[in-house]
Amino acid sequence: MAGTTIAAQTRPRDHLEMAELHGSISEPVLDTMNFLNEVTHRYPDAISFAPGRPYDGFFDTEQVFTHIRHYLDHLAERGSSPADIRTALYQYGPTAGQIRQIIADSLRVDEDTEVPPESIVVTVGAQEAMLLVLRALFAGPDDVLLVSSPCYVGITGAARLLDVPVRPVEEREDGFHAADLEAAVLAERARGRRPRAFYVVPDHSNPSGNTMGPKAREELLELAERHDFLVLEDSPYRQVSPGTPLPTLKSGDRARRVVQLGSYSKTVFPGARVGFAVADQRVRDTAGGERLLADELAKIKSMVTVNTPSLSQAAVAGALLGARGRLSELNAEAAAYYGEAMREMLRRLDARLPAARREALGVRWNEPSGGFFLTLRVPFRVDNTVLTTSAQDFGVIWTPMTHFYPGTGGHHGIRLSISYLTHAEIDEGTARLARFIEAHCAPHTTSSAPHGTSGSQ
Amino acid sequence: MAGTTIAAQTRPRDHLEMAELHGSISEPVLDTMNFLNEVTHRYPDAISFAPGRPYDGFFDTEQVFTHIRHYLDHLAERGSSPADIRTALYQYGPTAGQIRQIIADSLRVDEDTEVPPESIVVTVGAQEAMLLVLRALFAGPDDVLLVSSPCYVGITGAARLLDVPVRPVEEREDGFHAADLEAAVLAERARGRRPRAFYVVPDHSNPSGNTMGPKAREELLELAERHDFLVLEDSPYRQVSPGTPLPTLKSGDRARRVVQLGSYSKTVFPGARVGFAVADQRVRDTAGGERLLADELAKIKSMVTVNTPSLSQAAVAGALLGARGRLSELNAEAAAYYGEAMREMLRRLDARLPAARREALGVRWNEPSGGFFLTLRVPFRVDNTVLTTSAQDFGVIWTPMTHFYPGTGGHHGIRLSISYLTHAEIDEGTARLARFIEAHCAPHTTSSAPHGTSGSQ
Repeated sequence: MAGTTIAAQTRPRDHLEMAELHGSISEPVLDTMNFLNEVTHRYPDAISFAPGRPYDGFFDTEQVFTHIRHYLDHLAERGSSPADIRTALYQYGPTAGQIRQIIADSLRVDEDTEVPPESIVVTVGAQEAMLLVLRALFAGPDDVLLVSSPCYVGITGAARLLDVPVRPVEEREDGFHAADLEAAVLAERARGRRPRAFYVVPDHSNPSGNTMGPKAREELLELAERHDFLVLEDSPYRQVSPGTPLPTLKSGDRARRVVQLGSYSKTVFPGARVGFAVADQRVRDTAGGERLLADELAKIKSMVTVNTPSLSQAAVAGALLGARGRLSELNAEAAAYYGEAMREMLRRLDARLPAARREALGVRWNEPSGGFFLTLRVPFRVDNTVLTTSAQDFGVIWTPMTHFYPGTGGHHGIRLSISYLTHAEIDEGTARLARFIEAHCAPHTTSSAPHGTSGSQ
Repeated sequence: MAGTTIAAQTRPRDHLEMAELHGSISEPVLDTMNFLNEVTHRYPDAISFAPGRPYDGFFDTEQVFTHIRHYLDHLAERGSSPADIRTALYQYGPTAGQIRQIIADSLRVDEDTEVPPESIVVTVGAQEAMLLVLRALFAGPDDVLLVSSPCYVGITGAARLLDVPVRPVEEREDGFHAADLEAAVLAERARGRRPRAFYVVPDHSNPSGNTMGPKAREELLELAERHDFLVLEDSPYRQVSPGTPLPTLKSGDRARRVVQLGSYSKTVFPGARVGFAVADQRVRDTAGGERLLADELAKIKSMVTVNTPSLSQAAVAGALLGARGRLSELNAEAAAYYGEAMREMLRRLDARLPAARREALGVRWNEPSGGFFLTLRVPFRVDNTVLTTSAQDFGVIWTPMTHFYPGTGGHHGIRLSISYLTHAEIDEGTARLARFIEAHCAPHTTSSAPHGTSGSQ
């Protein structure tokens, strides 16, 4: 006890300093979610266009038991003994996952993509897949990740954890341009850095809502091959959007330049936390032996989560089996619902701020054909303080686009999500949003809130 | 198409080179599991003392449904509406977990540890907890992790992924000595490095089987405070061992020097992949604000797995609720079983290699009072080639201790696991093991196998 007292006197270290922890913790990108949750919690009556979560109404508590049973029955039909089934459910499982064949089958029938199950690693959401791929591909400080910007925070956050340098490639208002990416690749090369991969959400991007056209997809694949980098394709919204999606980059990837990041969070359910990576690239070792990149990802996964929880894999596999692998079929109703929500959103925005009025204000938005998000440009600066005012005084929450810029940018942008709200909420929410915009456009030389808000910057 | 052809000619990059991937992938530690799985797969009739997995016989497929229902009923009793319950099961959940209160209650009744739920982060197994803690605490190349060596591969593997330097602190044959740790801390300081944390499994360590005595525990806590480092306490076997365990380091941690890493893989089931970190250390930011280290771990987790799967949390919470938080009660039968398996193992080893005989051979082993592992020392060198011979010619599999040494060491050690086998298998397995040892002691100047084995080094 005496020793304790003396130590406490000579070294009063009863806490840690933020500055001695890893730099990622102080990154704004890691605080985005916390901040949005906090605002939502503080203003429970506000209508929120912030969360990119699926609509709750499609879920049914009993369904998950049905899915798991379905998978266990499938195992029995395939010849597993009761003891095998018990082991599959309870024990440590294969690091790369136990439902790879079911995922490969689904990719074949639903996405016209033929990959061996061995090229798939089942992950704890697409987020873990991002971490594994970045860890595998980025070996040193000169390896740089290119990202389409504005950008999903999951990829830049994972890069920050691993100290992977990120170079944003600005998306234009009409979306991706191959020339911009090529310029960035050449500029990084000129700096002595090695562009290893380019991350992109080709369909109904988060946050912009943009979709790459067929020509841009071809150009991207050609560029990846010519300049020797990989494309990280993340496309969680394509099967919950109306109409037939364009072919994935992976389905046209003859040169094996694409690592596909998969997520079942929108197509099955987020709480399962099941995603995957398709990594069919060959890796040659010094002895001339070859393995798949997926094998290397699995090795890394063994030190991140060991394996993906069996219950989650069972639930997702059961859902896939129930739809004969067709996520498109499983999500037909959801896709129609979200499509109608997007159209309703655009109709209500147009009614609240008709063309002439929004032109006068200097306000505009894009018109995505699907996905969960659209972006709105306003003539005033938008930040967390302005958001807090919007929540407090106007009862409407959204996401400042600045959160999605790895560098700087998006100071006049707002991301709106349509996925989580009813039509009645969209109706009322757009009315509030219009009032907020009108109020802030009036004195649009200043970006400060009309009256004090507590320190939520 | 023409472009593709030309590119393929001028830059024939249809594969990746191992050398351009992150160094962790080439680390032997990440291949340990793969190698053991492969040997097990190739010699299905061999009896394996390798896997540290729990005994299958305690599992019952229907039980998991009961656990999940139990948790959902608990939510309803606590006032959750059916819609709330549906959300808890299907949606994205809180990053730090939804069963923190239940875990805190369990730690109080079972481990005499009083921590606020806010200091807990629920993780995808203890493995993710290790990764989060390392990422938070290790900010630069001068921060060094000390590990008790031989050491669980999960911690050194996670360190390797994050390029965290590791210094092994050799465990003596009778276990941990505070003086050895202090010498290592001082030596690292003298090198200009900052020892940030010391990782240890105090109870029935994996791989050695050793348990730290009460005095060593006190000394460790005092040392951590005096030399300003944290202790990472990982103790997955204490509740599945016979008798009353010693108090955890965390329960005596008045100076908040211990981050407890928790695992339900042995006490509930591995397939759930649920673990946790208790991190009640305060972190002060530059503005003088304070948060808990757990808050910072949650931020990192949002970029690793987003949140722990809800089904897994529900299954574990249901099991805990069913035993009123007492893992000790839940595992009474299992602890007795494993205790008896360990005693049977020691009895059979003693029968196969009686004291006089093993002394003549130069063979000895420790006698753990619980846990899953014991270590056996042999006079000949042990490596993967010798293991392959043992599997092929003697029908018995085990783990070379070299796998658990972050530096070099363990060349004469074998880890034996007792957790997964029946008594009949232990009986036959020890007979085979004795034959293998006798055969290899005979020409014990050479470490090579008596006849050729395929290249499994």
